[in-house]
Amino acid sequence: MNHKATTLILFGATGDLAARMLLPSLYGLHRDGLLPQALKIVATSRSAHDDADFREHARAALVAHVPEAYFEADSAASFLQRISYVTLDATDAAGFQRLADAVEGSGEIAIFLSTAPSLFKPTIDNLEAVGLAGPHVRLALEKPLGSDLQSSCAINDAVAKAFPEERTFRIDHYLGKETVQNLLALRFANLLFEPVWSSAHIDHVQITVAETVGLEGRADYYDGAGALRDMVQNHMLQLLALVAMEPPASFDATAVRDEKVKVLRSLRPMRAEDSVIGQFTAGAVGGKPVPAYAEELERPSDIETFVALKAHVDNWRWAGVPFYLRTGKRLPQRRTEIAIQFRDLPHSMFASGGAKAAPNRLIIAIQPEENITLELMAKRPGLDRGGIRLREVELDIDQADAFADVRRRIAYERLLLDLIEGDPTLFVRRDEVEAQWQWVDQIRAAWGEAGATPRPYAAGNWGPSAAIALIERDGRSWND
Amino acid sequence: MNHKATTLILFGATGDLAARMLLPSLYGLHRDGLLPQALKIVATSRSAHDDADFREHARAALVAHVPEAYFEADSAASFLQRISYVTLDATDAAGFQRLADAVEGSGEIAIFLSTAPSLFKPTIDNLEAVGLAGPHVRLALEKPLGSDLQSSCAINDAVAKAFPEERTFRIDHYLGKETVQNLLALRFANLLFEPVWSSAHIDHVQITVAETVGLEGRADYYDGAGALRDMVQNHMLQLLALVAMEPPASFDATAVRDEKVKVLRSLRPMRAEDSVIGQFTAGAVGGKPVPAYAEELERPSDIETFVALKAHVDNWRWAGVPFYLRTGKRLPQRRTEIAIQFRDLPHSMFASGGAKAAPNRLIIAIQPEENITLELMAKRPGLDRGGIRLREVELDIDQADAFADVRRRIAYERLLLDLIEGDPTLFVRRDEVEAQWQWVDQIRAAWGEAGATPRPYAAGNWGPSAAIALIERDGRSWND
Repeated sequence: MNHKATTLILFGATGDLAARMLLPSLYGLHRDGLLPQALKIVATSRSAHDDADFREHARAALVAHVPEAYFEADSAASFLQRISYVTLDATDAAGFQRLADAVEGSGEIAIFLSTAPSLFKPTIDNLEAVGLAGPHVRLALEKPLGSDLQSSCAINDAVAKAFPEERTFRIDHYLGKETVQNLLALRFANLLFEPVWSSAHIDHVQITVAETVGLEGRADYYDGAGALRDMVQNHMLQLLALVAMEPPASFDATAVRDEKVKVLRSLRPMRAEDSVIGQFTAGAVGGKPVPAYAEELERPSDIETFVALKAHVDNWRWAGVPFYLRTGKRLPQRRTEIAIQFRDLPHSMFASGGAKAAPNRLIIAIQPEENITLELMAKRPGLDRGGIRLREVELDIDQADAFADVRRRIAYERLLLDLIEGDPTLFVRRDEVEAQWQWVDQIRAAWGEAGATPRPYAAGNWGPSAAIALIERDGRSWND
Repeated sequence: MNHKATTLILFGATGDLAARMLLPSLYGLHRDGLLPQALKIVATSRSAHDDADFREHARAALVAHVPEAYFEADSAASFLQRISYVTLDATDAAGFQRLADAVEGSGEIAIFLSTAPSLFKPTIDNLEAVGLAGPHVRLALEKPLGSDLQSSCAINDAVAKAFPEERTFRIDHYLGKETVQNLLALRFANLLFEPVWSSAHIDHVQITVAETVGLEGRADYYDGAGALRDMVQNHMLQLLALVAMEPPASFDATAVRDEKVKVLRSLRPMRAEDSVIGQFTAGAVGGKPVPAYAEELERPSDIETFVALKAHVDNWRWAGVPFYLRTGKRLPQRRTEIAIQFRDLPHSMFASGGAKAAPNRLIIAIQPEENITLELMAKRPGLDRGGIRLREVELDIDQADAFADVRRRIAYERLLLDLIEGDPTLFVRRDEVEAQWQWVDQIRAAWGEAGATPRPYAAGNWGPSAAIALIERDGRSWND
């Protein structure tokens, strides 16, 4: 499994993800000489194109989505030469035979499935039928992988019939982000943090995924999912697991994922009263009026566009430390971050000087900018009378200037390269996905039992006021 | 004792310290409106001057030693108006009477004794005789305060006869330095450091005071003292005490000094073999040839111009943690710093990626620039294959840019203001000085018993090679 793929097959190659992320990522890898020399990319979708057509489509996608500073006509041209195209419908056996013929004689093959989940099963059946599911083939899957534990298991079973777990690469693109990996480096390559990384020294953790957008044309999917399943089940629980996990023995797929799944299985079943759900009404975001969710959807709905949770990890390390999770649409800012807040000082020796020490915090900012900041207290320079006055200093760990020579890569660059090279460490294992669903299903059941329905919040606010109360009644505040 | 002084008497006002440090510091405080409105400064020395003469002398000192950007003719002029001058010899009773007359009717009086230690006793006797040692008077003393425990006790006894301990302000100007105080803020205003501030997580501490200069005309004093008594006994042991002390209950004179003296009393008596002494021979510093110590002195000498020590603080917190101290003249750089090196990771999960985590370090730089840097490991940005690659990042805690609006003050500004305002927290208490001498005397006795004499080192090197061996045989290295 550790041979580099010589062929990458993209399903859904004319789709939005391919245009915005996958093709620009592959181009970036190509431009920097990171793709295997011999790698061929076979694009497929239902649309009828020939190679030249699709290359032109791909070129247009690069022009539209690669930052100008990184777009080089020459390397784009040589990149496009790697690509060929096969028209293919998921249920079309003849099309799959054409695909098999096209990749005949390849060594290792990596397949990236960026299609509707409903197409997973027929696609996999057809891949198997034409011999594209053997030990030389690995398969990457994009979310959503089901809408609850049961449907997720059904997908996983269908995949597992043809692809054993070690050749199944489930994508959570948050794991491809530089800063998310830097969190691991920070925790496990520094002696300073691990001794204070527990309930003895951490007061609480906040994970926020705030969006300003509304439905963005994804109404059908989103209204069948809601904030909990769209964001918490996957990305936010992965972030939580990385913050909370025990030190893995090594940075390899088994060790890292063993530790993550232990955290996910330690999540305490939620009580309805430890969560708040909301749905946005008309309001204004960034100074512009926006319609209510129901108006955008063109029908009333009971789905949540906002959820706030107070979660607990019931293990030795995290006993008593709340993990506050919060995500929603039409919030005031686009912002994804993890905030780890340390406890207050047990005693302030500078109190008589009127100096109050703010608690230390470690902020892992993921969107819109990736960055890691450590907030410390230092002496305020000068001759302040009556003792030592304090001032907060923010230390930029993921210093842009320290690494100014390196461009920020798209998360998919890392993940596509790992897929091509066969390293599953940053992909999600089946047991993780299922532990995530189990916890999320239980929350939804609790909401059902409690008859919880979304509370309205005007677009442009941080969710319903009850979400503020959820954390404030613990004497804490959201990091807004 | 907490009334602000209305009179400051400077003994030794025509001396070098007054010109370089004391007058510029007082000017800086005046310029920034920090001196009590009514404060008068009475300068004294043996030289015959009238007020106008001395003011002209003081003005010249300001022009020479205040950075141009901070020198303002108007505020210099109003500062000089505060100053009057009394000609005075330490043994001249009539002169003291003139001084007493000059300050007649003052409220609180602060006296700063910047004279040869041999003049302390007659000066104090005369002060007492003319009523300038009463409860309204406090006395600051500059080093050297003796040359061993016995002579130090003699000075302290002479002082104590007239000035009780709470009105005796022993100066160690390192304590006036911003960064030294910031070390306290860092340790005790952040939750992050205290849990790792012990032998469980700190591997060792290094304190370096490196000078490039030779005797600088101080031959008589220096050859009677040597590096151990000139630097280790006072400044370096104060730095060690601040690093090692338990958290004081409050930032006040009693609490802070109680904790420091506990550390000083816990210093393990030294074995001769845990120290290395040296004396520089001819060599080159900064590319310029310089003569040997004996040549500069114009006679052979057995005094050490370099000392390296491996010290231990025998208490619960520091068991097994060496404190390596090193100071000398004619070394390659002028540099004063404390380096706190944390332990190696117990286990590196990134080892398979070829990434080696350097141990975390906290560097408190005191000279030539004041700064505090935390060295952490972070992920090296990019798609390094085979795991996560690490890179060291240096975080500037005492960020110049964070406080760009504030000029760096001279250490004496803080100490003079504390003296005027009667806050002894940053001054050295008698029991500290005596614990320092006790330890230093014991080292000198051990050298005597072992027949240790200074090893030669060529000027421009980091002391004799045995000093390198002292730390290297523990598997550690000096931070050069």
